[in-house]
Amino acid sequence: MKKSKPTMQDIAKAAGVSKATVSMVLNKKDDCISEGTRARILAIADELNYIPNSIARSLSTNKSGTIGIMLPDITNPFFSQIARAVEDAASDYDYNVIFCNMDNDIAKEVKYTKLLVSKLVDGVIFVTGGRSPESVKILENNHIPFVFVDRHVQGFEHYSGVYCLNKDGSYEGVKYLYKKGKRKIAFVTGDKTLSISKLRLEGFMESAMELGIYREDWVFYSDFTIEGGRRITEKVVATCDEIDTIFYSNDLMAIGGMRTLRAAGIRVPDDVGVMGYDDIAISGMMNPALTTIHQPIYDMGIQSCRLLVKHIRGQLKKQKIIRYAPEILERQSI
Amino acid sequence: MKKSKPTMQDIAKAAGVSKATVSMVLNKKDDCISEGTRARILAIADELNYIPNSIARSLSTNKSGTIGIMLPDITNPFFSQIARAVEDAASDYDYNVIFCNMDNDIAKEVKYTKLLVSKLVDGVIFVTGGRSPESVKILENNHIPFVFVDRHVQGFEHYSGVYCLNKDGSYEGVKYLYKKGKRKIAFVTGDKTLSISKLRLEGFMESAMELGIYREDWVFYSDFTIEGGRRITEKVVATCDEIDTIFYSNDLMAIGGMRTLRAAGIRVPDDVGVMGYDDIAISGMMNPALTTIHQPIYDMGIQSCRLLVKHIRGQLKKQKIIRYAPEILERQSI
Repeated sequence: MKKSKPTMQDIAKAAGVSKATVSMVLNKKDDCISEGTRARILAIADELNYIPNSIARSLSTNKSGTIGIMLPDITNPFFSQIARAVEDAASDYDYNVIFCNMDNDIAKEVKYTKLLVSKLVDGVIFVTGGRSPESVKILENNHIPFVFVDRHVQGFEHYSGVYCLNKDGSYEGVKYLYKKGKRKIAFVTGDKTLSISKLRLEGFMESAMELGIYREDWVFYSDFTIEGGRRITEKVVATCDEIDTIFYSNDLMAIGGMRTLRAAGIRVPDDVGVMGYDDIAISGMMNPALTTIHQPIYDMGIQSCRLLVKHIRGQLKKQKIIRYAPEILERQSI
Repeated sequence: MKKSKPTMQDIAKAAGVSKATVSMVLNKKDDCISEGTRARILAIADELNYIPNSIARSLSTNKSGTIGIMLPDITNPFFSQIARAVEDAASDYDYNVIFCNMDNDIAKEVKYTKLLVSKLVDGVIFVTGGRSPESVKILENNHIPFVFVDRHVQGFEHYSGVYCLNKDGSYEGVKYLYKKGKRKIAFVTGDKTLSISKLRLEGFMESAMELGIYREDWVFYSDFTIEGGRRITEKVVATCDEIDTIFYSNDLMAIGGMRTLRAAGIRVPDDVGVMGYDDIAISGMMNPALTTIHQPIYDMGIQSCRLLVKHIRGQLKKQKIIRYAPEILERQSI
């Protein structure tokens, strides 16, 4: 049994014609071919599931019809929703999407970037940390367009990207909590090295200071995961019994945190209010449903892919930044 | 400004040597090159971020170092966890992963399959419906190895795949509920055309019939989504007020269902018990935490990728099926 893809040669043999004739028919340059032969060739191609190899074309055009998305972890609902949007938009342009889980690991990021470049990806969507200009530099030197989503990379702030205003979100979040009568707010941010953690913390600090309710010992750092939320909440519960609210800077941490609070017999929202950030799909299903800062996650993914395709096609000569305003989504956890 | 990838020619020019010399150094056939020249060439290659193009090699070897994963929807936590595992395993072998969202849409599936074949993917992981032998036939005719995960495709039951025993899961689930004193159990399954819906329903029916508690009018169909769970639960609540338990055949439906029950003032587990299926990461965070049928989702993804790579490398001549036994995971919703 032959163990490779069906070729034009296989079709020619089955149809009893030359490979040149098959090529003319499949490439629709078949004015001089009889209708009967044409139909026979197409039927055989279909029967054999002949699919032209696009790799040869990639070599001559330097385009692969593939884009890459680099993100921390596809199992985080925030990133899977962005990935879904990017793939939906890419599919409209007949692009395929390679996804890579970075885990905020620079070595992994660089390795993947090189792999993507070697495969001639046409562009890359970057949803990463902000610590790693190295990968971006590699793309730039190889003239591969890229677009940031949600988090920029330090030193590349003026490059194309789609963001939701992180500082504004937590700034407004504190004002909302204040209006609800909250004065003793603990804030949990993510990994210190991520730009997004810094921005959300900055918004919190600025707002809390303006309102005269800022306390440095009520600021906590953790990971942007359910487990990170559980772990840090144990610490919050153990160290500050005065607080009336915990403002987590993402929903996953808030979800893990609510579980820990429940286990400790602390009622939400009666004893302590909980505020999240992101509005991932599951947040509305929590009990109590999570009050959070809504970001248009899917839209951000769609826009980033469209921006990237414009760069790839040379339709966008300058860098472009799209900024969304976050919104407070009131549910039951405050 | 030159707008393409740095080439060996660029390195040669910068180093003042011939392209042949650069090629020898970069391909490590540099015994005859002086250490000084070798070092200079490598430094320049690094500075320019020169990355060899792997596409030319793909053409001659018919291997791209890329695999595809076809799944219904990456935002469903069950599938994102499988995708994550596949990508983790693939990364160990230096493979990249292209992901495609099928939405249980056959036309989309066929389109993507052809696209993947045209890009010379080395293999495909299939996590789809079961209605579509067409895509699998295309892969087979192009001699591209594939492995099923979670759901087989009708007519291809004997091909390589990694499954958790779906029928056993719901069969044991009903026995567990019976032991807990439950006698009036409504069962919600997914899309009728999916093999997985049928198997889970079969297990339920067999078990409930054996125990003498089966009622046809307490079987419901919906989609395997949060929204599907919400919608069908409204119907369950409206039509059967006698039931003491709702057994959803996936966790997402159970999560949506619990929200609807809560909104209707029905307490879980006091008024009605809720059982899920899958054990996605978020299920333990629910309030009450969801009792469910645990599947080793991450392991299933890892094993499927390893199986695929063995097929690609010709290390596995026969088809191989791996079956996991599901386990009941007792939490607080029953």
